[in-house]
Amino acid sequence: MQQQGLKALVLTMEANHIYFTGMHSEFWNSPTRPYFLVVPAEGQLTAVVPGISRPLYEACPHTVGAIHSWASPRPEDDGISTLVEVLRELLPAEETSRLGAELGWEFSLRMPLADFRRLEGLLGGRAEFEDATLLLKRLRAVKSPAEVTLMKAGCQQQSRALDRMPQILHAGMTEREVCRLARIEALRAGADRVPYMSCRSGAGGYDDIVGAATDRRLREGDMLIIDMGSLTEEYFCDFNRNWFVGADIPAELLSVQDALYSAVEAGIKVARPGKSTADLFHAMSAVLPGPESSVGRFGHTVGLALTEWPSILPTVAGQNVTLEAGMVFALEPSAPFGSGRQFLVHEEVVVVREGGGELLSLRAPREISLLPLTAPASEDATCRFERSAS
Amino acid sequence: MQQQGLKALVLTMEANHIYFTGMHSEFWNSPTRPYFLVVPAEGQLTAVVPGISRPLYEACPHTVGAIHSWASPRPEDDGISTLVEVLRELLPAEETSRLGAELGWEFSLRMPLADFRRLEGLLGGRAEFEDATLLLKRLRAVKSPAEVTLMKAGCQQQSRALDRMPQILHAGMTEREVCRLARIEALRAGADRVPYMSCRSGAGGYDDIVGAATDRRLREGDMLIIDMGSLTEEYFCDFNRNWFVGADIPAELLSVQDALYSAVEAGIKVARPGKSTADLFHAMSAVLPGPESSVGRFGHTVGLALTEWPSILPTVAGQNVTLEAGMVFALEPSAPFGSGRQFLVHEEVVVVREGGGELLSLRAPREISLLPLTAPASEDATCRFERSAS
Repeated sequence: MQQQGLKALVLTMEANHIYFTGMHSEFWNSPTRPYFLVVPAEGQLTAVVPGISRPLYEACPHTVGAIHSWASPRPEDDGISTLVEVLRELLPAEETSRLGAELGWEFSLRMPLADFRRLEGLLGGRAEFEDATLLLKRLRAVKSPAEVTLMKAGCQQQSRALDRMPQILHAGMTEREVCRLARIEALRAGADRVPYMSCRSGAGGYDDIVGAATDRRLREGDMLIIDMGSLTEEYFCDFNRNWFVGADIPAELLSVQDALYSAVEAGIKVARPGKSTADLFHAMSAVLPGPESSVGRFGHTVGLALTEWPSILPTVAGQNVTLEAGMVFALEPSAPFGSGRQFLVHEEVVVVREGGGELLSLRAPREISLLPLTAPASEDATCRFERSAS
Repeated sequence: MQQQGLKALVLTMEANHIYFTGMHSEFWNSPTRPYFLVVPAEGQLTAVVPGISRPLYEACPHTVGAIHSWASPRPEDDGISTLVEVLRELLPAEETSRLGAELGWEFSLRMPLADFRRLEGLLGGRAEFEDATLLLKRLRAVKSPAEVTLMKAGCQQQSRALDRMPQILHAGMTEREVCRLARIEALRAGADRVPYMSCRSGAGGYDDIVGAATDRRLREGDMLIIDMGSLTEEYFCDFNRNWFVGADIPAELLSVQDALYSAVEAGIKVARPGKSTADLFHAMSAVLPGPESSVGRFGHTVGLALTEWPSILPTVAGQNVTLEAGMVFALEPSAPFGSGRQFLVHEEVVVVREGGGELLSLRAPREISLLPLTAPASEDATCRFERSAS
């Protein structure tokens, strides 16, 4: 902040509030109330938050120096005048201070833009906002040993849950049932919640990996992808697994999977300090048959958000990011096959280490796993299935 | 839009994309890519979306007339130039068109502000953005019969799941275990996912209803609140339930609960077309002992977002909203007690009808429900508990 000449950061987004204060809440799901955190270049944090959330900030494991709250919702002035008072107190009177805000790529202001403009207006010549997202991204991208330990536990939980799918899933289930059962399994394995899942299937392959699960039923010859972003103590784990329904996997699928497995192996080797995101991309890409899929990148970092900066992209002038020890990447190469509409994605989570990436997820087998055509006999299978169907 | 003189809406938020297109995806959890939907006052919708999401918009149940996509992420131009081309094509060349955007209260632009400013700059004199959120709020607030049917099914699922808590929960469990088990039960009851939960507890009462579950263990004499926002086919259900651990409920708690139960009854009676949100507030408030809690309102509508406009607030000049048949409200009165730091919240979901509110949730009992001190003997209790502990 001092290098950039910023007097303070004014932060509105969940991940940034968690990063600086340790506050945990699922209430960010309600779009009604804004939350402001003022991080000065020197001195203590100040939270300007709705009364309903005051106890949370009081209980924050990290130090919040002062908490100002108001009776929100108050549409005519939802915290803005309180925030202006706090900033006027903090900033020198006779000059224009530069404040850092979440204005840049992969960030968005979690407050009404009309209120942000009002804030700018009320501060007048006292302050100017500028983008501070690169600073925030760099802070969050390199994980501490404690963060890595937490994320490893979360990834291994998710690995164990997904490894159990062949004992739970079978042909005849709908994607929505698959999605519910996989979520239940992740919770049983210890995840606090599963904010992100995609369960998509198709004959011989899938052509989408981000849509919500549908009422389509799994059939023999289908490929199924589950891409899961489970959350434990506010840290995301994000990787996918693939299954073939039945036994006779087409040769082309076997070959694409083998190439993707090798691509992840190549990525793991390159995940060393000093290498770049483009090195990661090209190491994986070199092992794969062209062209590229619609995914648009070969991975990203993970942390307090499901996907974080930097992305694993090909060389683009000025945008390669140098890897640092402690960055946690989801290596996620993908490759189209057949008509080119279908594609396969294979993903693992690694932390950048001197000797190459250390796996946080439990490595998937090289071969595509199989799902049975009928329900396996299992002593506790009955209790896994939703009873609403009975 | 024609009344407001808007040529088109440019929408970035998940709930608005779902409302106009029927697209379903959990990928909104990834902050990386923006999604744009252009809704013209006349003519068909145009989606400007990342290539990875193109198949979703192609499969939309509602008509999307044209889909433009790009290889996202592309930090240097993440969809903006494509969106500008689409808007230049749509808008008359020789005048400044007014475009509606999500600038107002309870909304926030889901895109980098730097990109929004770039968009404004590139459009130059061709377009000006103005707030269209009241229009969007009014559209979404009144639910169709199909929406009400869906929401009723979701609320009843959630009711059944929460009704089962006394068979599942008991003293000795941590809030985080409670949270996981309640989520599993909601999924088993048929919910697609549970984006929002709060499980808070405290001796004789809780003093927070929005924090994430902690490792605090339930003890005899505790009050426990579970506030749940489960989601089925993209529609939220949002209400809470309370439990007392043990049997000897303090007289003050009984009396506050009784008042809150009566307040919800009063709210249900008033939930008729022609009454206002302030009428709802004052009908509930009249039954309660003062002062107010820190929650800040006595409820809100529910729908594609966990909390929607309008809020149930006291009379404020110009902000009372007239109720219309089909609005779905979470009636959520709260009352402090004891030292004033603890409070109790009681909530039900109703749809506004001519004869008064029709319950969508299954009405909670007037009395506070009890949780046992030890695990109940249940034939399938073992399979509910996470096996990671074993």
